[in-house]
Amino acid sequence: MAGPLISFLTDFGPESAPAVCRGVMWGIAPDARILDLTHTVRKYAVRDGAFLLSRMVGYLPVGVHLAVVDPGVGTARRPIAIRAVRGDALVGPDNGLLMPAARVLGGIATAHEITASDLFLTRVSSTFHGRDIFSPVAAHLANGLAIEAVGPPVDPSSLVDLRLPEAQVGDGYLDTAVLFVDSFGNARLAGQPEDLARAAGRELAAGQPFRVSGGAVPASGVVVPWQATFGEVAAGEPLLHEDADYGGLGISINQASAAERFGLAIDTPIHIEARGR
Amino acid sequence: MAGPLISFLTDFGPESAPAVCRGVMWGIAPDARILDLTHTVRKYAVRDGAFLLSRMVGYLPVGVHLAVVDPGVGTARRPIAIRAVRGDALVGPDNGLLMPAARVLGGIATAHEITASDLFLTRVSSTFHGRDIFSPVAAHLANGLAIEAVGPPVDPSSLVDLRLPEAQVGDGYLDTAVLFVDSFGNARLAGQPEDLARAAGRELAAGQPFRVSGGAVPASGVVVPWQATFGEVAAGEPLLHEDADYGGLGISINQASAAERFGLAIDTPIHIEARGR
Amino acid sequence: MAGPLISFLTDFGPESAPAVCRGVMWGIAPDARILDLTHTVRKYAVRDGAFLLSRMVGYLPVGVHLAVVDPGVGTARRPIAIRAVRGDALVGPDNGLLMPAARVLGGIATAHEITASDLFLTRVSSTFHGRDIFSPVAAHLANGLAIEAVGPPVDPSSLVDLRLPEAQVGDGYLDTAVLFVDSFGNARLAGQPEDLARAAGRELAAGQPFRVSGGAVPASGVVVPWQATFGEVAAGEPLLHEDADYGGLGISINQASAAERFGLAIDTPIHIEARGR
Repeated sequence: MAGPLISFLTDFGPESAPAVCRGVMWGIAPDARILDLTHTVRKYAVRDGAFLLSRMVGYLPVGVHLAVVDPGVGTARRPIAIRAVRGDALVGPDNGLLMPAARVLGGIATAHEITASDLFLTRVSSTFHGRDIFSPVAAHLANGLAIEAVGPPVDPSSLVDLRLPEAQVGDGYLDTAVLFVDSFGNARLAGQPEDLARAAGRELAAGQPFRVSGGAVPASGVVVPWQATFGEVAAGEPLLHEDADYGGLGISINQASAAERFGLAIDTPIHIEARGR
Repeated sequence: MAGPLISFLTDFGPESAPAVCRGVMWGIAPDARILDLTHTVRKYAVRDGAFLLSRMVGYLPVGVHLAVVDPGVGTARRPIAIRAVRGDALVGPDNGLLMPAARVLGGIATAHEITASDLFLTRVSSTFHGRDIFSPVAAHLANGLAIEAVGPPVDPSSLVDLRLPEAQVGDGYLDTAVLFVDSFGNARLAGQPEDLARAAGRELAAGQPFRVSGGAVPASGVVVPWQATFGEVAAGEPLLHEDADYGGLGISINQASAAERFGLAIDTPIHIEARGR
Repeated sequence: MAGPLISFLTDFGPESAPAVCRGVMWGIAPDARILDLTHTVRKYAVRDGAFLLSRMVGYLPVGVHLAVVDPGVGTARRPIAIRAVRGDALVGPDNGLLMPAARVLGGIATAHEITASDLFLTRVSSTFHGRDIFSPVAAHLANGLAIEAVGPPVDPSSLVDLRLPEAQVGDGYLDTAVLFVDSFGNARLAGQPEDLARAAGRELAAGQPFRVSGGAVPASGVVVPWQATFGEVAAGEPLLHEDADYGGLGISINQASAAERFGLAIDTPIHIEARGR
């Protein structure tokens, strides 16, 4: 009989802070399987954490998903627990971090404000709610505690929401936007390669040129080929490609930062023309 | 039924050396729950390892705590196992590394030199006792082996000790010292924010000025405000604050190294005056 | 009753990609003990992955060993599963990555091409077979699936092989070659310290000089002492030493890159004379 699963995503850095949280969780739920997703989300970047959690959670078994990217720790923002339609529990701050993942898991069944302080560590610090509040609550939920026991229900529509941009397929073009920029400056765009193919009216082929505009790109746009991998273009050259990890659309420069060259940041609108069509 | 807990702290770096040790432990104690605390302790910095272990261990369930920061590996320093009063076992080199953690766990009940070579890997290298001696012994203890079986008892007062400095609250001042400097140059000081408040004779308030001297600071001291977070001061400005991870007192500079600017290293004495009182 | 062991080595980087794979494995084999070996193998460096896996696997319990360093992903290279004589299963691409480890585990009992797509994730991407093919198959094997069920047997002699160089002991010299260069430029050589001692006709002693030639070293060679640790030589000075992690022979420079100074890369032949004999 395998123990319950707790996945764990933070911006705490890879070091001792997540380890202490795992210790707290194993003190309460000794048979939990703890799955570290990542602890190097850009500090306080709620949107990055929301993107990464939403892209991973669909590959995980039903369980408790603990996520803490919490610039508002110590302020009045609510700690919350969400029951998703798929059956998972999501635990973290009410700042939008959990919402895209909840949608991937079928939407919100119920949401509760975490107020049951008897579940917390005895001493709650003002800055480390990940250890003192969220980890114990996640562990109790993993043990089978009813989500109603963490605190009063809240109207899901009252939760801070955070919606990731979506792509619109046009006749000969795709209107999209930047979802995420990694530490190398590669940008992930809304939409799938299939959407780009539909915009182009044909299957994507290696070398097929597109005209990309947006960000700091000159108004006339820049021509970028579709390629399978970075290695297909010369160093310093851009490409449109399928994101290796999560299957979406990406724009990158081989051995350089597309974000810097093209002036891309989260939510930058991007217009891609299927050139020559 | 959850398996026994083994926590694990080293200066081996994040890569394959800790993985091999986990493999050795799981070969002997297949149902152990192994909790990596950190493997990026500054190389051979016994004092840093002792500080970090002592700050984490109180948050962990009762278990076996394996710690290896061992500049004396291959010399005559003893390998030891300690039974703490709380019930935990601590395993590592006799160089002080385990002592502050043992005090957090209620003190030493018994201590044993590790000599039972039938517990070790068949071939013991001269440089990797973490894998060949300490990991197997930790795993056997996790399996329930009596601590007496690892080797003869030793007088706890014969163990190499390592005491972390403590803070002294005076009338209008706090005498403290540097406990730890992280890789960003933030310094952790002995004592708690409560001690600073007692020294000041009032609750700490955002912006409240203190006069700090010690290290390379000019004799007249430097004025440093109490603040909740780095973001409350301008880039390049110092602050006194509560340590985000372990709840103690810290001195930092927003986006710069306090250790470098103020000449702080482990054990540097620091005098903090509640200015204007 | 402990669950089955799955060890896991990739060049995916330390972040979310291995976490998603662990999630997929725990979805299929919920009681598996997953042992991350390393995820920072140099990108696409099959040979480095093969070296590291082969050096670690002998310290692990019998289990499933999943390794993915796969520059050929999306091409016709075969996915394979190997049953080793010791009883372990090895899962990964047919590019030589698994072969040195298989030899450490007693050799190949049977090998199978992975073709049973009902074991895979429903949607198989062109770039992330680690998640979509290899992780599910490893998890099914950990659950006890017969290796015959993953696909048809293949002749072991048809597998892409990759042999690590071996050392030859001569009368007064050792002919060896570079096995691995780490990120600091330390080189691991084929052979053991015992081989060097046999070449020298005596036990190795601290400071004992050898004459090393090969790579970009001038034809007359360079004199390098045998030492136990880096600290025994001045900064910028070379040493021959026992590899701290895996017990083989290493050549390094204290606080500098031996690979750069001496022009060493994988397979560079190295000739070591027991000088003055």
